[in-house]
Amino acid sequence: MSLAIISPGKNVEPWIKVLNSEDPDLKIQVYPDIKDPQEVEVVMLWNHPKGILKTFPNLKLISSMGAGVDHILNDDSVPEEIPIVRIVDEKLTFSMTNYVIMGVLNFHRQITRYQKDKANHVWDMSNPEIDIKVGVMGVGALGGDVLEKLSFMGFEVAGYGFSEKKDFPYPYYSKNELKEFLSSVNVIVCLLPLTPDTENILNLELFSQCVPGSYLINVARGKHLVEEDLIVALEKGYLSGALLDVYRKEPLPKDHPFWDEKNIMMTPHIASVTNPKAAAPQVIENIHRIRANQPLNNLVIRRRGY
Amino acid sequence: MSLAIISPGKNVEPWIKVLNSEDPDLKIQVYPDIKDPQEVEVVMLWNHPKGILKTFPNLKLISSMGAGVDHILNDDSVPEEIPIVRIVDEKLTFSMTNYVIMGVLNFHRQITRYQKDKANHVWDMSNPEIDIKVGVMGVGALGGDVLEKLSFMGFEVAGYGFSEKKDFPYPYYSKNELKEFLSSVNVIVCLLPLTPDTENILNLELFSQCVPGSYLINVARGKHLVEEDLIVALEKGYLSGALLDVYRKEPLPKDHPFWDEKNIMMTPHIASVTNPKAAAPQVIENIHRIRANQPLNNLVIRRRGY
Repeated sequence: MSLAIISPGKNVEPWIKVLNSEDPDLKIQVYPDIKDPQEVEVVMLWNHPKGILKTFPNLKLISSMGAGVDHILNDDSVPEEIPIVRIVDEKLTFSMTNYVIMGVLNFHRQITRYQKDKANHVWDMSNPEIDIKVGVMGVGALGGDVLEKLSFMGFEVAGYGFSEKKDFPYPYYSKNELKEFLSSVNVIVCLLPLTPDTENILNLELFSQCVPGSYLINVARGKHLVEEDLIVALEKGYLSGALLDVYRKEPLPKDHPFWDEKNIMMTPHIASVTNPKAAAPQVIENIHRIRANQPLNNLVIRRRGY
Repeated sequence: MSLAIISPGKNVEPWIKVLNSEDPDLKIQVYPDIKDPQEVEVVMLWNHPKGILKTFPNLKLISSMGAGVDHILNDDSVPEEIPIVRIVDEKLTFSMTNYVIMGVLNFHRQITRYQKDKANHVWDMSNPEIDIKVGVMGVGALGGDVLEKLSFMGFEVAGYGFSEKKDFPYPYYSKNELKEFLSSVNVIVCLLPLTPDTENILNLELFSQCVPGSYLINVARGKHLVEEDLIVALEKGYLSGALLDVYRKEPLPKDHPFWDEKNIMMTPHIASVTNPKAAAPQVIENIHRIRANQPLNNLVIRRRGY
């Protein structure tokens, strides 16, 4: 039996180091150098080439290498009967929340304006803060943590999600209250899971319902955002700026208009990066569990999408 | 009796509006247009011309227009027997803490690096976070709040102050433990009051004891920092960058080297700006109290310096 790591473009050395130290007997093959596909019983995936799982006749377990599994569920050829598990890591939450708060504060305290003033040797003390209320779309583990931390820092917040919620500790708007949600906030943070319902949700129609000059932070998935609509929304003033970490195509193509759009701040999908030290032992644990016929940790429910 | 506002260069309209609505009978004179100096019984000061208080023979109360009073105590001609009060405002704490956290997160998540990468159309996912431990110099109301919020966000923190403290809720270093404090952190936030003991405390000797590549945030007073020493510390790599809000001379002179120093982020003394809506009623309240011979709120103890 062996484990195959299939994550084109990712540096897998830190993963292999931890996997080896956790289970020295585990045989590891790394794509594209998989010599014995019939030996592969477990795969670790991150943006695998679609269809590749068909080449492993003895596959028993699929593990995402991160919190998201949309990259796996998007592949129609992934066998229905094989369980999928994902990584749940406190460090992921720490990083995601602090990235989002950085974006929120940079808008609130106008870092772009002050950088421009510095470049021009301008001293302008007027209107030092933009009053904000932060709306978080997606109120799971990550969105809930963002709401809690921002609220503790003294900011007004609101949540939006697809399900009804009782006793939610912050103002909450459910699926059909998107318009009310948007008109009550001026910073919009997208932390939704990517599902058929949420793909392309950040589009011109949504932006046109925002408080003019609102700020967008997308740290979920590139496919939540209709990228050309963001450019239009900035031109029309529906939005005044955006912080993006994810894109429809990654790495972002060299000729993409976002690179030179001055009101967009960008990072290369690093808001929250899975830490192999925390994640690899979770994979090993699930391998032991499937061998022992025990219930798997962090099992994905496919129809829910996460 | 009248109130004189002496704050050259500051827009006092918002103050006058609130003062008028709180006490419509109060007569207000604004420097430099003070026609009846003998009528002045109360002054509100922010960076007043030194010596001016001598021109008010009937002065009974001096109010700072902000939290700091060093600008008043620095003037030897301020009469010893006149009480000085200052503004205490929750909004000041909110703004200061969130400004500091913005600076901490921008260093931790390398905003400058990613802005450069964007300008160069570079996609580089390596090493997305700098591990940090944040040290706060000055652990009063403001420093304590910064420590509490950063700790809640999951960061390691430590405090430094001139007094001994028992049962401080975070690791704490007192006056003679500066070296130990500096070697235990890599982000240094200065929130000390400005006193003869703390003037010039941020100097080359201190920087040379920092963990190499540390980050400095000065939001206290310009005179805490020996400005030419910061330039040297950046050149030598003692520090990798700084966020500054205060300067020895404000507005910062047009030819100051900080403007073009790429590793310094700057704002024009706006980290925490007194809100006239919260502050002006405190001045009115103290005027009523001194008239009624009641104890003053937020009275400054001169020998302590704040």
